[in-house]
Amino acid sequence: MNIFDEIESEVQSYARSFPRLFNRAKGEFLYDEEGNEYLDFLAGAGTLNYGHNNDLFKKELLAYIEADGISHGLDLHTRAKEYFLDTLNEKILKPRGLEYVVQFTGPTGTNAVEAALKLARNVTGRENVVSFTNGFHGVSLGALATTGNSHHRGASGVSLSGSSRMPYDGYLGDGIDTTAYFDKVLSDSSSGIDAPAAVIVETVQGEGGINAASFEWLRNLEAVCRKHDVLLIVDDIQSGCGRTGTFFSFEEAGIKPDIVTMSKSLSGYGLPFAVVLIRPELDQWKPGEHNGTFRGNNMAFVTAAAAIDNYWSNDEFAKQVQAKGRYISSRLEAITSKYGDGSFSPRGRGMMQGIYCVNGTLAGKITRKAFAKSLMIETSGADNQVVKFLCPLTISEENLKRGIDIVEQAIAEVCAEQGDIPSEVDFFEDDYNIPAEERFSKAG
Amino acid sequence: MNIFDEIESEVQSYARSFPRLFNRAKGEFLYDEEGNEYLDFLAGAGTLNYGHNNDLFKKELLAYIEADGISHGLDLHTRAKEYFLDTLNEKILKPRGLEYVVQFTGPTGTNAVEAALKLARNVTGRENVVSFTNGFHGVSLGALATTGNSHHRGASGVSLSGSSRMPYDGYLGDGIDTTAYFDKVLSDSSSGIDAPAAVIVETVQGEGGINAASFEWLRNLEAVCRKHDVLLIVDDIQSGCGRTGTFFSFEEAGIKPDIVTMSKSLSGYGLPFAVVLIRPELDQWKPGEHNGTFRGNNMAFVTAAAAIDNYWSNDEFAKQVQAKGRYISSRLEAITSKYGDGSFSPRGRGMMQGIYCVNGTLAGKITRKAFAKSLMIETSGADNQVVKFLCPLTISEENLKRGIDIVEQAIAEVCAEQGDIPSEVDFFEDDYNIPAEERFSKAG
Amino acid sequence: MNIFDEIESEVQSYARSFPRLFNRAKGEFLYDEEGNEYLDFLAGAGTLNYGHNNDLFKKELLAYIEADGISHGLDLHTRAKEYFLDTLNEKILKPRGLEYVVQFTGPTGTNAVEAALKLARNVTGRENVVSFTNGFHGVSLGALATTGNSHHRGASGVSLSGSSRMPYDGYLGDGIDTTAYFDKVLSDSSSGIDAPAAVIVETVQGEGGINAASFEWLRNLEAVCRKHDVLLIVDDIQSGCGRTGTFFSFEEAGIKPDIVTMSKSLSGYGLPFAVVLIRPELDQWKPGEHNGTFRGNNMAFVTAAAAIDNYWSNDEFAKQVQAKGRYISSRLEAITSKYGDGSFSPRGRGMMQGIYCVNGTLAGKITRKAFAKSLMIETSGADNQVVKFLCPLTISEENLKRGIDIVEQAIAEVCAEQGDIPSEVDFFEDDYNIPAEERFSKAG
Amino acid sequence: MNIFDEIESEVQSYARSFPRLFNRAKGEFLYDEEGNEYLDFLAGAGTLNYGHNNDLFKKELLAYIEADGISHGLDLHTRAKEYFLDTLNEKILKPRGLEYVVQFTGPTGTNAVEAALKLARNVTGRENVVSFTNGFHGVSLGALATTGNSHHRGASGVSLSGSSRMPYDGYLGDGIDTTAYFDKVLSDSSSGIDAPAAVIVETVQGEGGINAASFEWLRNLEAVCRKHDVLLIVDDIQSGCGRTGTFFSFEEAGIKPDIVTMSKSLSGYGLPFAVVLIRPELDQWKPGEHNGTFRGNNMAFVTAAAAIDNYWSNDEFAKQVQAKGRYISSRLEAITSKYGDGSFSPRGRGMMQGIYCVNGTLAGKITRKAFAKSLMIETSGADNQVVKFLCPLTISEENLKRGIDIVEQAIAEVCAEQGDIPSEVDFFEDDYNIPAEERFSKAG
Repeated sequence: MNIFDEIESEVQSYARSFPRLFNRAKGEFLYDEEGNEYLDFLAGAGTLNYGHNNDLFKKELLAYIEADGISHGLDLHTRAKEYFLDTLNEKILKPRGLEYVVQFTGPTGTNAVEAALKLARNVTGRENVVSFTNGFHGVSLGALATTGNSHHRGASGVSLSGSSRMPYDGYLGDGIDTTAYFDKVLSDSSSGIDAPAAVIVETVQGEGGINAASFEWLRNLEAVCRKHDVLLIVDDIQSGCGRTGTFFSFEEAGIKPDIVTMSKSLSGYGLPFAVVLIRPELDQWKPGEHNGTFRGNNMAFVTAAAAIDNYWSNDEFAKQVQAKGRYISSRLEAITSKYGDGSFSPRGRGMMQGIYCVNGTLAGKITRKAFAKSLMIETSGADNQVVKFLCPLTISEENLKRGIDIVEQAIAEVCAEQGDIPSEVDFFEDDYNIPAEERFSKAG
Repeated sequence: MNIFDEIESEVQSYARSFPRLFNRAKGEFLYDEEGNEYLDFLAGAGTLNYGHNNDLFKKELLAYIEADGISHGLDLHTRAKEYFLDTLNEKILKPRGLEYVVQFTGPTGTNAVEAALKLARNVTGRENVVSFTNGFHGVSLGALATTGNSHHRGASGVSLSGSSRMPYDGYLGDGIDTTAYFDKVLSDSSSGIDAPAAVIVETVQGEGGINAASFEWLRNLEAVCRKHDVLLIVDDIQSGCGRTGTFFSFEEAGIKPDIVTMSKSLSGYGLPFAVVLIRPELDQWKPGEHNGTFRGNNMAFVTAAAAIDNYWSNDEFAKQVQAKGRYISSRLEAITSKYGDGSFSPRGRGMMQGIYCVNGTLAGKITRKAFAKSLMIETSGADNQVVKFLCPLTISEENLKRGIDIVEQAIAEVCAEQGDIPSEVDFFEDDYNIPAEERFSKAG
Repeated sequence: MNIFDEIESEVQSYARSFPRLFNRAKGEFLYDEEGNEYLDFLAGAGTLNYGHNNDLFKKELLAYIEADGISHGLDLHTRAKEYFLDTLNEKILKPRGLEYVVQFTGPTGTNAVEAALKLARNVTGRENVVSFTNGFHGVSLGALATTGNSHHRGASGVSLSGSSRMPYDGYLGDGIDTTAYFDKVLSDSSSGIDAPAAVIVETVQGEGGINAASFEWLRNLEAVCRKHDVLLIVDDIQSGCGRTGTFFSFEEAGIKPDIVTMSKSLSGYGLPFAVVLIRPELDQWKPGEHNGTFRGNNMAFVTAAAAIDNYWSNDEFAKQVQAKGRYISSRLEAITSKYGDGSFSPRGRGMMQGIYCVNGTLAGKITRKAFAKSLMIETSGADNQVVKFLCPLTISEENLKRGIDIVEQAIAEVCAEQGDIPSEVDFFEDDYNIPAEERFSKAG
Repeated sequence: MNIFDEIESEVQSYARSFPRLFNRAKGEFLYDEEGNEYLDFLAGAGTLNYGHNNDLFKKELLAYIEADGISHGLDLHTRAKEYFLDTLNEKILKPRGLEYVVQFTGPTGTNAVEAALKLARNVTGRENVVSFTNGFHGVSLGALATTGNSHHRGASGVSLSGSSRMPYDGYLGDGIDTTAYFDKVLSDSSSGIDAPAAVIVETVQGEGGINAASFEWLRNLEAVCRKHDVLLIVDDIQSGCGRTGTFFSFEEAGIKPDIVTMSKSLSGYGLPFAVVLIRPELDQWKPGEHNGTFRGNNMAFVTAAAAIDNYWSNDEFAKQVQAKGRYISSRLEAITSKYGDGSFSPRGRGMMQGIYCVNGTLAGKITRKAFAKSLMIETSGADNQVVKFLCPLTISEENLKRGIDIVEQAIAEVCAEQGDIPSEVDFFEDDYNIPAEERFSKAG
């Protein structure tokens, strides 16, 4: 019995889908102990936007460690933190006209979300936070209350309170703007939805199934928030750091969130790191009110600053990502038209796209076949029904094509093997596919 | 205006007490950008038991990065993880007769606590978790409900439910065994304390003011838990990894917790890392039920394994820590007897000790004077009234003496400057100082 | 200063709208101490369906008291209870093909709701209860969580948890069936709406503004409940006991709730009384698990049985109520067409109808003018914007006409006095008035 | 099958202990349908302090109904209410130097508690309410959170939050003043007990097992509340209205609660009725903020005023109650000394006393034997281990003696039948019986 079977907890999950012992990684590739190469379309669930062990940051990290730079400093001021803040300010915030202060939380996304929710509640004196169907914001208790997934919610063992749920863009069918419903419940003093401190929203829902909100919906959401004095929190943990083609995922929509949570690819090198960006007026924290031993992470300051320096000093990288995003779109449209007789549809934007399958069983067959062809790719969504393309943004065009080719081949094989892809879809799936007027309209 | 004043959040705390820009660190020393040296009696709030940038681990870390070892791997199996698990099992668990499975959570203590609480609730089907007065277990919402500090609790902005509070050892005065009260409420079906899933306890309360539970109390607590089928969670995040003179802080008491949370010094090098140790029968997690992007941290696997290899392959290091602990005890007893006419008293055990002052103002004066003498030392406790000695365990005897000398000098100066140290202590303080029978007994 | 100003709490409400000292009442009339007569279109907020001090029950009540019948008997078996149960069973339940057991709770509607919610949660093992926008179910803490009104919710001072909110029939505009949204969130395992124990719904929302659900919507709601194993609780406290033209308000819709809560007019004589009707399989209460000193109310048993005997032994009374309901409908339609240029619209069904005004200020003017004309009538709705017609069902045709005439006259006067009734309605109001496709549809 | 078995819910409880069909009642007697007479030592769980169908009130009630007095008036001002308020003010409040405003809530004790808790939370802006071990305050959700009984708590199906539990007088043994512990947690900012809005306490715990707090403890509790700006709520629902020998149970202790809840015997005639008495400065309710259809109860106004007029215009009745209380004390002391070798002990004060038995099985045998001898008496306490004497205060001396004689005889028989009354008591029971220093003290 190997040591993992012997003493690692049953909670393991990726290790079950990709049962190899990995040893080394570079760029868009992972290698197992036997030297086999795997093309990585997971990218650490969005953590490795710049690929594995990116040489541009690696040398900085090695130099910092070599020189005995501060490795752990609580929230003391350090050179590394100073340089990171300067870089973030000069190359990211100022050019975008964004004025934010930066809070360093415990270095995980869920800790950043916890901090954002606390701050919003404290500043407004309200308890309720509105989150959306299929949203995912982490699994510590405060964040979990805003997360939609019942698998995770059910594990809490306590009431998940302090949050109300609203339908995300498209949830009531294509024709209905769900922000109007939101506006109405806030305008109606007996709607039963308590005046919220904040809304927390992903512009593209990663774990929820690669659902991309339209820019108009995001603008309407911001307008409703402004109208009712509700803070707008964008959770850019998975969709930020260039994933959708701009540094922040909300740039194209033209909105200015009050609070932004970031983590995953922010350190650039896969190091744990998380920040909350806060409109200065809202920075009403008392000293140490929200704390944590590893808040900040000095090594991550080093690589995060290097990532910004190297990739965001001009718009070249963004343009490359956008181009790759367009390529992915065209390929996914072609594939979903060609195969499955309507069983597949594309979704998402930028380099955060997916293929929606009629059910999770089908999607699982595809990803397993892909892994057999040395491509690591996972599913997401309530029923794991979306094949989720999340490769490093720095992937070569050749490898991007190769990865998509593998998925196409897997789909082709699955379709060939089975004539039984559902043409009669059951209730849940059809919500997304048939016109709203037929689904949500009253009979005759 | 420097960048910290410009865009770092007001939530900063240590940076206010120690307003320097730090640049480099080694062993028990930090250096600011002007090259000034500071003796470190913080040790990253217990994260740097092996000192800063310990050369024994540094070379392993550099080699791992150099070789493009996996830096971020979600929960995939990696060589680094394999080696860490093997080392932990062979050198820590087996020799102590402990059978635990290991869950890797998001790499912060509070994430580990969140996981432990969830698991206890899921396994038992009960919601209530009992925690203790002055306990500190983190500030994400689930953990915060079990934390006692009102400064942190007040920031939540929501109800902190699912937890009941019991008095810690000594809280009702020296003569009263508070586990008898706990036993009674569990035996009494209308006590109003719902049958708990678990108890979460620190054997020495760090943030709560260096309160050390007696071994007898810990054994009684374990006995009450067994009697009522309540799980016993020891939060060994601050007091573990050798801090009290043994790897786990509960070893001397002879108890076997059902669940143990660890973090802080576990990685050895200040890298974010946290685990939950679980009795195998309790490992009822479903795959991915509790997750997190940075769960595990491969670089931390490397340094954590090196720390165990280098310091815990035999009992030499433990003996050194115990000897230093005895030295600290003798010094603190001498100092508190000599100065302040009863305004000071020693507390704690091993290398987790403190000087209790009659109030936080006094303690603050002492630590500020110490910093002026280039010693970094902080306070803890409800009123910040405890000067908290938490130097690296690897500190040289000479520097240990030097640090304590500085504190003694600071105390001497403070006492000299002011004749006004309270002799009439107010209610709160006297609870700790006057005999229980006078305080809690009924008149006549 | 009178004694009310001197020592009655500021919480008084009706006493402010109708500042008289009342002394006597009969049928549809109240009398103040000076002998002035007031026509009662409040009917005790739905408690006096059979009028004040109905002689048919009065003689039974007097005889019972005279004979020293049990006045207070906890939940002991008494002759009065036996007779009530027999009568309810033979004349109400059996003829309608309804099999329910009867739980006597503390004699208020909110206590019945508390019991219903507890039972649903216990039987299903689930916590979440779905309630609807503008629903009102009481103000004790459990019931309040399901109530929509922010005035009442805000008074709780604690989190109101354990409930999710869904849009009531018509809330998203006329064209949208909101049960489809409900079905979808229950079908979607990451919707964030936890699987509910039950739905609690009023077939006509009284306090929420006299919103009547369509029969089709109620049937769809029942179907969604059956599909997802969710219990259906109909709160018939205000709309039951004949108010809508049948004994239970849900009869015409053809649905069979799992649990029904009743109170208000159930005793017939204005005496405090409440019951929960429960499908026998769900009656899993342990003895005394939900209790209360005044559960049952023996005097109410007497009058409640008399009410059923006198009014529900055949369908004559129901037909009279239905006829009066049709009369009210025709009058309200005529009035709302004639006055206000669209500022008014009718709503409701049976003898539970109202006139929706564009805002609460307007509605308040109307009811104040009516009171000056000796008609007592109140408003309801989030903004108190609905003039609520709730006279005794036993009212004479003449007095019914007279009351409506008074309201019409009041409206005519208000319209005459002010040319300023809003033609440009603000956001909230228009939701009810403009077509759904314009309001909730996406632009272009 | 009778109708109760057929359609009354399984939740019935008293009906199981006293399986007769009752028909008539007078004074201290109940009569079943066969004319059998039962001596009533239940008094409606404290609701019938003036006996069943007291002729002094009966004639007033009949006259009121006869005259078509308002039977249901929401919270309108009525003559009946005016007279009640005047009487309460002149004969109860003013003579005792108490200045309170009166809130009429839904007519059950639990509704009054809900209102009191809400008000305390609203006025202070704090959420936490401290209640005591073995306290009972009702079973609607807000009240239930403060109730200790796990049978009732477990039925809620949701988290019971917003309340902290403190040990009642004597809970930690006779020698320990538990208000010192309370003072300490409030003084300690990291105790984990959030600053409370209020304390809610019974001066004698009825359902909790007839535990009487000492007057000194009550005064200390009041002092701690004043020191920390915590509101003091006395729940006088069961112990008020003369039960302990004064109108309010707290009079002898000399404390002045901020809020008092009353119900049960307040109406005098067993009619549902409840009020909250509020210090005028705290009456910060907004109109209708807490409401309820049956708030106030006009028939109860009539009988409640008559009860005060007849029994509380001078101190004669109080003196009679006190004398009867002394008689009960002497009898219970004699009985518990004579029988059971220490298995029995007396408790309580005034006419609210009980015999504590070593376990509930024993107590149940006694009450069943008593019922066989035509005495209705029940048990209370966590394990139903206390035989609870709660006869009408107006009972004749002869019948009081007779009832106690029956219990004594039942005890004698039980003791004779079984030689097996436990001499070795288990943990829970001995808490009450052995000296605190042996139970809670640390081993030498």
